Amino acid sequence: MKKIIIIGGVAGGASCAARLRRLDETAQITVLDRGPYVSFANCGLPYFVGGVIAEEADLLLATPELFRNRFNIEVRVHTEATSINTTSKTVETVNVLTGEKASLPYDALVLSPGASPLRPPLPGIDLPGIFTLRTVPDSVQVRDWVTQRKATSAAIIGGGFIGLEMAENLAHLGLKVTVIEMLDQLMPPMDPEMVTPIQTTLEAKGVTIALGDGVDHFEQTSDGHIAVFTKSGKSHPADLAILSIGVRPETALAKNAGLKIGERGGISVDDQMRTSDPSIWAVGDAIETTDWISGAKTVIPLAGPANRQGRVAADAICGRPTTYRGVQATAICDVFGMAIASTGASEKALKRAGVTDYEKIYLHPYNHVTYYPGAKKMHLKVIFRKSDGLILGAQGVGEVGVDRRIDVIATLIQKHGTVYDMEEAELCYSPQFGGAKDPINFAGMIASNTLRGDMSVGHWNEWENSGAFLLDARDPSEFAEGHHPAATNIQLHELRTRLAELPKDKEIWVYCAVGQRAYYAARLLDQRGFKTRVLPGGYSTWKRSV
Amino acid sequence: MKKIIIIGGVAGGASCAARLRRLDETAQITVLDRGPYVSFANCGLPYFVGGVIAEEADLLLATPELFRNRFNIEVRVHTEATSINTTSKTVETVNVLTGEKASLPYDALVLSPGASPLRPPLPGIDLPGIFTLRTVPDSVQVRDWVTQRKATSAAIIGGGFIGLEMAENLAHLGLKVTVIEMLDQLMPPMDPEMVTPIQTTLEAKGVTIALGDGVDHFEQTSDGHIAVFTKSGKSHPADLAILSIGVRPETALAKNAGLKIGERGGISVDDQMRTSDPSIWAVGDAIETTDWISGAKTVIPLAGPANRQGRVAADAICGRPTTYRGVQATAICDVFGMAIASTGASEKALKRAGVTDYEKIYLHPYNHVTYYPGAKKMHLKVIFRKSDGLILGAQGVGEVGVDRRIDVIATLIQKHGTVYDMEEAELCYSPQFGGAKDPINFAGMIASNTLRGDMSVGHWNEWENSGAFLLDARDPSEFAEGHHPAATNIQLHELRTRLAELPKDKEIWVYCAVGQRAYYAARLLDQRGFKTRVLPGGYSTWKRSV
Repeated sequence: MKKIIIIGGVAGGASCAARLRRLDETAQITVLDRGPYVSFANCGLPYFVGGVIAEEADLLLATPELFRNRFNIEVRVHTEATSINTTSKTVETVNVLTGEKASLPYDALVLSPGASPLRPPLPGIDLPGIFTLRTVPDSVQVRDWVTQRKATSAAIIGGGFIGLEMAENLAHLGLKVTVIEMLDQLMPPMDPEMVTPIQTTLEAKGVTIALGDGVDHFEQTSDGHIAVFTKSGKSHPADLAILSIGVRPETALAKNAGLKIGERGGISVDDQMRTSDPSIWAVGDAIETTDWISGAKTVIPLAGPANRQGRVAADAICGRPTTYRGVQATAICDVFGMAIASTGASEKALKRAGVTDYEKIYLHPYNHVTYYPGAKKMHLKVIFRKSDGLILGAQGVGEVGVDRRIDVIATLIQKHGTVYDMEEAELCYSPQFGGAKDPINFAGMIASNTLRGDMSVGHWNEWENSGAFLLDARDPSEFAEGHHPAATNIQLHELRTRLAELPKDKEIWVYCAVGQRAYYAARLLDQRGFKTRVLPGGYSTWKRSV
Repeated sequence: MKKIIIIGGVAGGASCAARLRRLDETAQITVLDRGPYVSFANCGLPYFVGGVIAEEADLLLATPELFRNRFNIEVRVHTEATSINTTSKTVETVNVLTGEKASLPYDALVLSPGASPLRPPLPGIDLPGIFTLRTVPDSVQVRDWVTQRKATSAAIIGGGFIGLEMAENLAHLGLKVTVIEMLDQLMPPMDPEMVTPIQTTLEAKGVTIALGDGVDHFEQTSDGHIAVFTKSGKSHPADLAILSIGVRPETALAKNAGLKIGERGGISVDDQMRTSDPSIWAVGDAIETTDWISGAKTVIPLAGPANRQGRVAADAICGRPTTYRGVQATAICDVFGMAIASTGASEKALKRAGVTDYEKIYLHPYNHVTYYPGAKKMHLKVIFRKSDGLILGAQGVGEVGVDRRIDVIATLIQKHGTVYDMEEAELCYSPQFGGAKDPINFAGMIASNTLRGDMSVGHWNEWENSGAFLLDARDPSEFAEGHHPAATNIQLHELRTRLAELPKDKEIWVYCAVGQRAYYAARLLDQRGFKTRVLPGGYSTWKRSV
C-alpha cells in the first residue's frame, strides 16, 4: 500500500490527489493544507470581495468530507508541513491551531504549496488596512474591513490581473478606487498598446489610474486611514490598500529539503513534474516549467497549467508514461465587461529574449458581421516568426469574442500552427457569431500577405525615422475628423487618378482606419512602380498609441 | 491585359474579384449578376424578414459603385449569363430587364452561380404565398406579404438552418409558426440526440414542430390562405409557407458548356478550383469539394468556404501556388438564444460511410465555473478515431460558449489534432470565461480515458442488449427525482462499503448525472475486480434521448 502525501490542496494538489485515487484504489493518500480549506476557488476571491459571489461556501469546490467519502482521501486542514526528511522519507507537520505535531512517512510526495503575494519591506507595509489576497480568509478580511469601516476608498498597488479584478470589485461596492502601478502600463504581461481599452474602461467607471509611480511608503493618518506615498512624492489616502504586485513561488520547504531550485526561483522539475529528489514531485505556482514558445524556463502562476501538472504528476507517480508539454501562458481578465486575453509570447518578452525573427500585425475587427445588430469591435495583435510564419503569440481586447479568438490561436500555437493556418481556419459563422471571414481569417491573411511579399509592413514607432511619405487613404470626412499630422489624404477611390501627386523617390507609408483600404492602396501602388508600406491597424492603432 | 469574367457576385465571386484586383492591377475584371445587387448578405435574409435587420440597405455589403471606384471592377447587375462558348472563350449574356444581349470574351472565367432552393414538383407548389429565400428580393417579398396580409401564421417546410432561422424570425413578428420536417429530427446535418434543446427552445417559444411527416401537396383555401397537406393526411393552414428543404447547386450553365459535373451533383473542380476546362474556375455552393475528414467528394453550401475558394481561384488564375484544403463543414445556427454548432463528421455521416473505427463521448459542462453567477450548461459530443484518437467531429448546443468550443475543435481538426491534444489544450480561463479545466479539457480527458483503457464506454442504445447490471451512482435525492427504470442506486460515497450488493458475474454499467461520478465509480470497481462500462453523459444524455 503506497503512501502518498500531497502538500497543498488547491488546484494542482487537489487534481493530483483525485487522479491518484482513480489510478490506484489502494494507495494511502493524504492531503495537507495549512489553511482551513482544500480546493477553494482562488480565482473567485476578488468576486467574493465584490459581492458578485455572495457566499463563502460558494468558493469551496470540495470539502475534506467529500475527499474522504468520494475518494477515500484523508485531508488534514490547518496542517502545515514544516520540514521534509528526504532520507527517512517523512514530512514533519504541525497543526497551526493546536500545535500538535506529527511525522508522516511517504513513498511519494507531491509539493503544491503555491505562491505567496509579494510584500516588499517598505516602511508601513504592516499597517492595518493593507491586504493581500490569496486565501478565503484573506478575502473575508477585506470584505469585513470594507463593511465594518464603511470604506469609501481603496488604493490598489499593482495593476495586473488581481489588481484590476479587485479594482472592479471594490468600485462595484461603491468605493473610489485608485490603481497605482510602477510600470507605465496596466497589465504588465501584455504589450502596452493593447492595454489602452482596459485603462479607458476603468477610467470611465471612475477608477483613477496612476502609472509609472512606485510606492515609497505607507502611513497611517490620524483618522485611521492609510496614505500611500509614491516615489514621485504623491500621497493617495484610502480606507484600505490592496497589495497585488505579484507573487513569489513558495520554495522554503523545498529549499530546506535540499531540492533543486531553478534559476527563475521556482522548484526545478522535469517534464514529469519530478523534482531533483526521485520520490518528490512538485506542481503549480511554486515550480519552474518550460515556456512552450521559447523553451526557456519560466514561472507562471496559472490555474489551468497547475491542474494539468497535478494530473501529470499523478500519472508519473503511478508509473504511467506522461509528459507536461510546458506552458504557453494563455490568460484572460475581464474588467467591467472589457476582456483582455493573451496566449504565447508578448512582443516585450521576445525583445527581452533578444528575438528579432518576428513580425507583428494589428487588426480591429468586429466580433460579428456589422449588418447584424450589436457588433462589438475588438483589437487583436498577432506575433509570428518572419522566417516561416509560426505563430508566436497573440493578444486581444474587446467586449465580446476575444476569448474565442485567443483560444483558437492558443490551439494553433499548441499544434505549431502558422499564420497560413489562420487564413485557412474554418470556424463557426452565422450573423450572430462572426463573419464569412472570421477575425482569425483576416489576421491570417494580413500576416500571410506580409510573408508572401504582397504587403510590406511599417509600424508607427518606426515612421518618424523612415523619411517616408505618409498617405491617408480614408475618405475626406474621416480625415477631417482626425488624422496623423504628417499625413496627406488621397482617398482610395481617387488614388488611381491622382498618382501624380505621390513622390516616386521615397517610400509611401499608407494607413486607413484599420488597414484594409491601406492594403488595397498599397497593392495598387506597388504594381504601378511605387514602393509602399502598410501601417497595420491604421489610424486606430496610431490613436491608441498616442 | 487579361480579361476575367466572374459569374455571380455574392460571397465566392465577390471575394475572387477583389482578390484578383489586388494581384493584378491591370486585368480587366467584370462581374455579372442576374440579380439587382452584388455581394449581399444572404446569411442576413431571415433577420431582414424578422425586422432584426431593419433596412434593405444593411444587407448590401458592396455596391457596383464601390467595386468600380475601389477596385476598378465593372459590375453588371440584372445580367444573366446564358451560355459559355469554351472554344471562342466567350460568355453570352442578356440583361433580364432590357433583354439586351452581349457576348463577352474572357481569358479566365470564374463560375460562382450558387445554389437554388429546392422546389419539388408537388401539387400546388406554385400557389401565391409559398416562398423560398435566396435573394434580397425574395426576402422583401416575404416581408411585404406578412405586412400587407397582416399574416398571423406561417408553415415552414424543412427544419434545417434556414427553416429554423425563419421560424424564429416569423415568431418574432408575432406569427404562429409550424415547422414541418420530413425526417424525425430538426437540423438534419446534426445527430438527432444533439438537437433536443433546439426543439425544446422552439416549442417553449410557441413554435409547433411536426416531425417525420413530408409534404404531400398544397391547397389554397377559400379565404386565400395556404393549406399544407402532409403525407400522414394532416393539414396545416397558414398565411404563408416557406420552402427551406435544401438547395441544389446551379450547374445548368456549366453543364451546357460541357464542364464535368461530379457524382454529388456539383461542378467538378481540382484543389485550385479549376474545372475540367483549363480556363474556367468555379467556387462556392455550386461546386463539389473534398471533405477534409473523409476525403470524399461533397457539396456543402457554406459562406466561409465559398469566400476562401474565391480567394484560391484568384490566386490560381494569377499563377500563384495555392490549394484549397477541403471543407470540414463547421457551422452554427442560433435559435432564440440557443446555439447549435458542429464541425467535421457527424456520427450519422460516419455510419452512412460505413466507418466503424470511431468512438463518441458526451458531456454536459457549464460554460464557466458554477461559483461565478450566470453559468449556462452546454451539451457536447465528440467523435474520434478509436485506433489513434484523431478527432473526427464534434457537435455542441447551448446558450453561451458553444461557438468557442466548436471553434477550438475545428482548429484541432484542421491540424489533425487528437483527443490527447484536447486534454493538453491551454485555453482562456477566468471565472467569467471557463474553468481551470475547460470543457475542451474535460472532453479530451473523457475521450482519452476510453482510449487508454481507463474507462470502457457503453451507450444507452446498446444497454438493452447488454445483459448488464445498471448502477446509478448519484445521490438518493437525485435518484428519487428520476432515474432509468432498470437502475439500482448506490451513491458513489457508499460504494466502497456496499460492494457486496453488486454482481460479479456480469458487466456493471454505471451512470450518474453527467458522467464524472460514474467514471470515479468505474475506476474504483475496475480495480476491485468488477468489469464496468461508463455511460458518458449519464442520466442527462439518457433523458435527452427518450
